[in-house]
Amino acid sequence: MLVEFSIIPVGKGSSIGDDIAKVLKIVEAGKMPYKINPMGTVVEGTWDQVMKLIKKCHAAVLKNGERVVTTITIDDRKGKPDRIEEKVKSVEKRLGKSLRK
Amino acid sequence: MLVEFSIIPVGKGSSIGDDIAKVLKIVEAGKMPYKINPMGTVVEGTWDQVMKLIKKCHAAVLKNGERVVTTITIDDRKGKPDRIEEKVKSVEKRLGKSLRK
Amino acid sequence: MLVEFSIIPVGKGSSIGDDIAKVLKIVEAGKMPYKINPMGTVVEGTWDQVMKLIKKCHAAVLKNGERVVTTITIDDRKGKPDRIEEKVKSVEKRLGKSLRK
Amino acid sequence: MLVEFSIIPVGKGSSIGDDIAKVLKIVEAGKMPYKINPMGTVVEGTWDQVMKLIKKCHAAVLKNGERVVTTITIDDRKGKPDRIEEKVKSVEKRLGKSLRK
Repeated sequence: MLVEFSIIPVGKGSSIGDDIAKVLKIVEAGKMPYKINPMGTVVEGTWDQVMKLIKKCHAAVLKNGERVVTTITIDDRKGKPDRIEEKVKSVEKRLGKSLRK
Repeated sequence: MLVEFSIIPVGKGSSIGDDIAKVLKIVEAGKMPYKINPMGTVVEGTWDQVMKLIKKCHAAVLKNGERVVTTITIDDRKGKPDRIEEKVKSVEKRLGKSLRK
Repeated sequence: MLVEFSIIPVGKGSSIGDDIAKVLKIVEAGKMPYKINPMGTVVEGTWDQVMKLIKKCHAAVLKNGERVVTTITIDDRKGKPDRIEEKVKSVEKRLGKSLRK
Repeated sequence: MLVEFSIIPVGKGSSIGDDIAKVLKIVEAGKMPYKINPMGTVVEGTWDQVMKLIKKCHAAVLKNGERVVTTITIDDRKGKPDRIEEKVKSVEKRLGKSLRK
């Protein structure tokens, strides 16, 4: 399944880059396909793989703070592998042009 | 932690009440504190308790369809139990009045 | 349309109750049907009515802070009025029982 | 402000690529900075610019269907322009390496 997640520490400074860097170190070490964007991180894997990774990231951010808000969006479609690459390509093919990523 | 989730079957009829009813049967059987609202279900528990429940609900809806989009929002605050009741009460106390629920 | 929204001030204390109270004062003054839950506020109205209200709430929280994260989920279904009451009732009817709200 | 949005037609086939293509044509014509990812589209602009665009996309998808679920996440930070490029760069600088996008 394809999953986007975002982790926001609440009650620390308005610059949360250190926490985001910590999360992305964990994502990179996780060996799962991922893509980051300005609003979150997209990963692809099974429910258990993905949730194990997000739990680890969420715990790492909560460790140094008091409160964390994490949002997770799951798009699960039967029989469709490698959607992290194919979803955008499929839209580009329909439009006959390349889009900004 | 306090968690709201919502499960949408994609590619079936626009009436998804049967799937929502199935989800709420699972939530009720789960023995965790919950509250439903017109846009989702809020539950309170540990990461593992909550994710086990949502995985079960997600799988039940996917079983009869091709594609499911599930959104999960986690609000995790250290040292604050029973937030499923206390969060709204605390706002009502600040405002000095009862709000529509 | 039915809309749930949630506004989180980032970079202030982990207790954000004052900001939530400010938001709910605006919602109450807005005269639109609403329901609050432990994770957000659900309102019902047209696109322009709802977005005008959320813009006002978002601006009120940003006024006293540096950064705000606002999430909005819209469920828009043709020809279905009063869904803020009917959606939950319809599920309860299917299940033949009342649910916790 | 930086905004990610995603529009899901409910009650049509599980392949929603035509609707997504329609949305991205509108986004491209909008002349605002944007980036697409496998789970949504990120745009940057003022509240009114962004909401006008999303309203147009939402209406275009609803036109051919019965029900649409649209999610919007706003990250609004005072005094920070060009965040659609700078947010990811700032994390890469902290990590001292380039990340997958």
